[in-house]
Amino acid sequence: METIEISSREKVEMIEVSKEVQQVIRRSGVETGIAVVFVAHTTAAITINENADPDVVRDMLKELSKIVPYEDDYRHAEGNSAAHINSSLVGASETLIIENAQPLLGTWQGIYLCEFDGPRRRKVHVQIVSA
Amino acid sequence: METIEISSREKVEMIEVSKEVQQVIRRSGVETGIAVVFVAHTTAAITINENADPDVVRDMLKELSKIVPYEDDYRHAEGNSAAHINSSLVGASETLIIENAQPLLGTWQGIYLCEFDGPRRRKVHVQIVSA
Amino acid sequence: METIEISSREKVEMIEVSKEVQQVIRRSGVETGIAVVFVAHTTAAITINENADPDVVRDMLKELSKIVPYEDDYRHAEGNSAAHINSSLVGASETLIIENAQPLLGTWQGIYLCEFDGPRRRKVHVQIVSA
Repeated sequence: METIEISSREKVEMIEVSKEVQQVIRRSGVETGIAVVFVAHTTAAITINENADPDVVRDMLKELSKIVPYEDDYRHAEGNSAAHINSSLVGASETLIIENAQPLLGTWQGIYLCEFDGPRRRKVHVQIVSA
Repeated sequence: METIEISSREKVEMIEVSKEVQQVIRRSGVETGIAVVFVAHTTAAITINENADPDVVRDMLKELSKIVPYEDDYRHAEGNSAAHINSSLVGASETLIIENAQPLLGTWQGIYLCEFDGPRRRKVHVQIVSA
Repeated sequence: METIEISSREKVEMIEVSKEVQQVIRRSGVETGIAVVFVAHTTAAITINENADPDVVRDMLKELSKIVPYEDDYRHAEGNSAAHINSSLVGASETLIIENAQPLLGTWQGIYLCEFDGPRRRKVHVQIVSA
């Protein structure tokens, strides 16, 4: 297991971690298997989406803020309930397939850490299992 | 593989299963690997979120009921379409990383069974794979 | 690893792939383990839901189109931002438990490829890991 440490800069942000995950896979020496990418926080998430046009990420974050409004008579005293809800909707992890010592991703797929309550220092754990 | 059986008491509810999952991992004897926590039902889900302030869960269930209204001219005759939709949005499983014979969770992360159409008797399967 | 190729016919559609995934598991010869079902596209997703009443799928797709409207002042020039958002909400993969050389699914659970921007030719990768 390896841990990637990332400092977010914005309140809400998607930060691509594809290269970092690829490096962990390479260092593991595993040719064929899976990689679990897991964020150890309840106001962040991991997702896979397009990394070509930055407007995809922009549209996604804007739309999520409409689906889960930042203010909505929440009770949780820290005031970040929307971030917790987005964390469960997007999910705390992604499981990747490893083939030829690489993550098997489609042409446009990148791996993202979703920050929903930044800026904060975040830990992303990567566990590799050989097939 | 081990199966955790849980009886929900409410229509909509999040029940923490962190201890039960931890016990399955301990019994497996696996030190390093992954654990797949999978709910065998289409109106329930598994998620990871804060287990410190119960208002986080409360806010989440209330907001989900706004995002996916319980009544909305659904066709499915059983009348529980919202529960099916929430099941797909939150997801049927979570994959955890095992390190030192423990699930590698952040300080505030707990594992939850989400009941969206209770009360019912639910089965949560846990499969352990050594790394 | 095996790849299932699927041609969608509609703009938005859920196509059951349970049999195809089951065949990949059978061919692998693995009795106990996990299967990662991963779609290699950013405007599609994999989910598990009821495969008995087709109205469940119908209600789900209709409701998702309300939660994430197809038009909403998105900036992404391709005009398929809603498909990208649904992809991250539903998720690019599902991890199944294998027991007795079969996916361990509940009575009503089927595995679906969700097409959010069809019709297109889609690739679904399946990786099997023995426990």
